[in-house]
Amino acid sequence: MSVRDEFDFIKKVQPATLHHSGLIGIGDDAAIFSVDARFEQIVCVDTMVEDKHFLPTTMSPYHIGYKALAANISDIAAMGGIPQYYLVSISIPSNWKESELLEIYDGLKKAGDEYKMDLIGGDTTSTHSKLVISVTAIGKVEAGRRLLRSNAEEGDVVFVSGTLGDAQGGLDVLLEGNKEVQGQNSYLIRRHQTPTPRVTLGRILSQFTRVSLNDVSDGLVSELKEISNASNVNMVIDSETIPYSRALLEYNNEKALKWALTGGEDFELVGTISKENWKQLSAICEKENIPLSNIGYVQRGKGKVYIRNKNGELEEVSDSGYNHFFS
Amino acid sequence: MSVRDEFDFIKKVQPATLHHSGLIGIGDDAAIFSVDARFEQIVCVDTMVEDKHFLPTTMSPYHIGYKALAANISDIAAMGGIPQYYLVSISIPSNWKESELLEIYDGLKKAGDEYKMDLIGGDTTSTHSKLVISVTAIGKVEAGRRLLRSNAEEGDVVFVSGTLGDAQGGLDVLLEGNKEVQGQNSYLIRRHQTPTPRVTLGRILSQFTRVSLNDVSDGLVSELKEISNASNVNMVIDSETIPYSRALLEYNNEKALKWALTGGEDFELVGTISKENWKQLSAICEKENIPLSNIGYVQRGKGKVYIRNKNGELEEVSDSGYNHFFS
Repeated sequence: MSVRDEFDFIKKVQPATLHHSGLIGIGDDAAIFSVDARFEQIVCVDTMVEDKHFLPTTMSPYHIGYKALAANISDIAAMGGIPQYYLVSISIPSNWKESELLEIYDGLKKAGDEYKMDLIGGDTTSTHSKLVISVTAIGKVEAGRRLLRSNAEEGDVVFVSGTLGDAQGGLDVLLEGNKEVQGQNSYLIRRHQTPTPRVTLGRILSQFTRVSLNDVSDGLVSELKEISNASNVNMVIDSETIPYSRALLEYNNEKALKWALTGGEDFELVGTISKENWKQLSAICEKENIPLSNIGYVQRGKGKVYIRNKNGELEEVSDSGYNHFFS
Repeated sequence: MSVRDEFDFIKKVQPATLHHSGLIGIGDDAAIFSVDARFEQIVCVDTMVEDKHFLPTTMSPYHIGYKALAANISDIAAMGGIPQYYLVSISIPSNWKESELLEIYDGLKKAGDEYKMDLIGGDTTSTHSKLVISVTAIGKVEAGRRLLRSNAEEGDVVFVSGTLGDAQGGLDVLLEGNKEVQGQNSYLIRRHQTPTPRVTLGRILSQFTRVSLNDVSDGLVSELKEISNASNVNMVIDSETIPYSRALLEYNNEKALKWALTGGEDFELVGTISKENWKQLSAICEKENIPLSNIGYVQRGKGKVYIRNKNGELEEVSDSGYNHFFS
């Protein structure tokens, strides 16, 4: 598409109705929204690059839009926040059709509507190279409630939501390219293409006084390393307690552990909470039907992560977040 | 640079000190900042693409960073706001050196420090194609103070700050490539590479009850069309009152008008204010040493812009924002 048609294009993607009131959205130099002094503002940005984060064989334009926003919502969930607004900057190569671009915005809108988020701005530019989409998401969290990576303390329970490795499994299914296998693994494919951020769990966690938290965007090991480093503690994880979906184990039992540890993009929440609060948290999650697993504990230390393998042996995870044992 | 070094790189660009207190910046899933209920929040995003918005011959990495943030600050100024924070998403091709990327962040920091803005987040990705930098800027403005494009009314004075056409003139000097000419036109080059957003003027304008406002990013004609359309009025501009710098007239007297009307990137403020308030505004600007010109007036109408040429003839500007008369 030529960006000479930018004004027409923006009109087509401008939301007809808004979830929030009293705001200035698309159509001026900048967006303006009102604030609530009981809350603090959350903001994050996430970028997806054609050929790097998606291929025509793995993601339709709709999926690109959905996932670009979902990844951002997941970051807001990891801060315990309520998603509110988003802005989209898109750099468009001339070989992309307007219909494909509108599908990207359909995907964005679908993810946005699920969390009552309004598209309030952005930038549309043309490029001589690949499509780049950069989404800025804005949310809010009650003042003083901060689910930081640096909050872990000795004795804490390490928890993770849902199941891990599914997104990487789904990507593997897609790259394999076998239509029959793809038909049998639609769950894993959905986990790759339209991930579900854990906003409700983030909100539950925000009510506890001390929680460390990350979303699983880069793989479990990488997220645990970040928490351990930020909190200056060690962690001990039991590989036998890592949660998998039945779909993943049926698709590739052998690679499930590796994908869980290093695959990433599951957009589950991983973190730590005191032993006392763990009981209360797991009771609430059971009631709310949110799967949550206790996968280990926090030790005094200096940013190291240990994983106990199925033979009961402890292994330190390397700094690159990648363990030879699991490769 | 390889984005395998992402963590090291982020540490290098993380600010050592912050202008604002009580915030969570780089180093968690998202940034968090506190709000003030007397204000509303402003947010905008602006993207620059290699080979499209800059060339190695026209912009150093430092200039790319400076201008990427300055363009965003200009959007905040056009809403009457106070700049506060920014986030940077950058997609990095492998042929860019880390030293060049650090220079981009030096330029960002220079522009940010001038307006007490803190870098609070971003995203760093690698790309197989060209460098793309997308900056999200956040500011605030007193609740209820909205300098919108839709605020123009019949009888208003049309004003513009500073001088127009300089940025396009500077680009012309750079593309010309003659070192001697470049040495003689450093003012125009600076206007292209390190533009100065009109934050102080935006703040002054925010104190008036009704002002329509835009920043000159796409050229005077395009900005006036936006205000006319949004306000559903016509505008009559006198070409003889358009302000030029002496540097531009000395460099290319003949093209000055065309560059002023369609060149863009001057990042001046253009808008309308009632006749009664114009006197007060121009008195304040004179005292504050901010150049401000009365270039025309608002008429009842339907989104048309007319320009009176030097022979006194009125000409309607075409919808594309480009007038054959001036080409």
